[in-house]
Amino acid sequence: MLITSSSNERIKHARRVREGRERELIFIEGERLVAECVSSELKLHACFTTAEPSESQQKLLERITCPVFQLSESVLESLSDTTSTQGLIVIAERPWPTLDRMFESQSPLILGLDRIQDPGNLGTLVRTAEAAGVNGFFSFAGSADAFAPKTLRSSMGSAFRLPILADVSGLGTLETCRSRGLKTVVATGEADLSHYDYDWRQPTLLILGNEGRGASTEIMNACDAHVRIPLHMPVESLNVAAAGAAILFEAVRQRR
Amino acid sequence: MLITSSSNERIKHARRVREGRERELIFIEGERLVAECVSSELKLHACFTTAEPSESQQKLLERITCPVFQLSESVLESLSDTTSTQGLIVIAERPWPTLDRMFESQSPLILGLDRIQDPGNLGTLVRTAEAAGVNGFFSFAGSADAFAPKTLRSSMGSAFRLPILADVSGLGTLETCRSRGLKTVVATGEADLSHYDYDWRQPTLLILGNEGRGASTEIMNACDAHVRIPLHMPVESLNVAAAGAAILFEAVRQRR
Repeated sequence: MLITSSSNERIKHARRVREGRERELIFIEGERLVAECVSSELKLHACFTTAEPSESQQKLLERITCPVFQLSESVLESLSDTTSTQGLIVIAERPWPTLDRMFESQSPLILGLDRIQDPGNLGTLVRTAEAAGVNGFFSFAGSADAFAPKTLRSSMGSAFRLPILADVSGLGTLETCRSRGLKTVVATGEADLSHYDYDWRQPTLLILGNEGRGASTEIMNACDAHVRIPLHMPVESLNVAAAGAAILFEAVRQRR
Repeated sequence: MLITSSSNERIKHARRVREGRERELIFIEGERLVAECVSSELKLHACFTTAEPSESQQKLLERITCPVFQLSESVLESLSDTTSTQGLIVIAERPWPTLDRMFESQSPLILGLDRIQDPGNLGTLVRTAEAAGVNGFFSFAGSADAFAPKTLRSSMGSAFRLPILADVSGLGTLETCRSRGLKTVVATGEADLSHYDYDWRQPTLLILGNEGRGASTEIMNACDAHVRIPLHMPVESLNVAAAGAAILFEAVRQRR
């Protein structure tokens, strides 16, 4: 079926998904991301493609079980989130992992993000977290959307595999993790303890805070420990995704 | 002196600097970056401000020794690199550090970037490198400009303090570092040696390659060692700025 009008109801709905206005659904664009999403357990709702999909897109479409709609070039452009559309878009259900899956490891390492604003930083942290073997990922209310198109471009397939709970209460997450036996640790430039000297073999919730202001006072006060990355003067802070990588791969080292 | 025409010769020249078309000069925008640049040893050529600078901008202007030009709002907008201009722009000489400064440490740690494309990644790596005590920074020909406005927004003041040589030959850099007694190491997903098991206390040039393709074959072949960051399956790679942070802060740990 070919859609030639960008005011078609399906297209209008898909645009709302793209803009994050349909909270149960996510917008996935580009061959690589769509392939990752098809390989995951996400439930697909609709797929949009060009009238003349390439050979590799054809192969991918054979693995897609939801309805597929072909779009005229201008309709595809009106739907795409990027300046040069890759001609393949999928609408899927937002994953909603169970807490049990996050805590089934013997010594869970969980990442919590407190109001990270930049989708690129958030997506990079999702990818780094999966690479470091993190067991679960909480993004607190006030953070960028972990499943927005721009975030997905940075997180790549990791967002479809890592158990992510978004838009949750920060203090609530601390309570949940504590009740499961985890220590709660926040990264801040003002801690005495270096991240090298914290024992990451313990079950731990690591919290990273907002790019400019760090974690909120309530979170800082509620955590069991504060750690800092020792920085050469006069640098005062790292980019939050770089800080996350430095700390998480120190945890990996200690857990080897 | 108030400039009200965006076709004024000074404004046209400043726009060329912004676009990277005056290779000896760099374009620095925003109060924070300008303050960092004033505190550094950069030679300033011109400063552009609004007709009504804020109190904090006034304070900063008192420390600026080059000619200051006031711009009408529309001229400032035509010059600004950001959507919401912060009303303060400086044109400064591109720093050109001596090699001796990079190698004066007893066991230098140098970072080389092979064709990093994203200015945000490049800037984040500059900031992370300074924070990790890196002694020098080479960006090989074909990389994004280390002093472009977008890169500076990510690197912050680190670009004005860390000795950076941009647009240099990759193989030439390897030769230079080798002749000064450094080992040359490249990060790649295909190495046997983990970055935890490399001895970073040695004088070392660490090379990070392009976001998608890694370092070039010539660089890979010419290096003394290849290291990889051990990643949990099925993640195949990290964002290059995250990889840099993980490796550099392992080097910091070993060098403590």
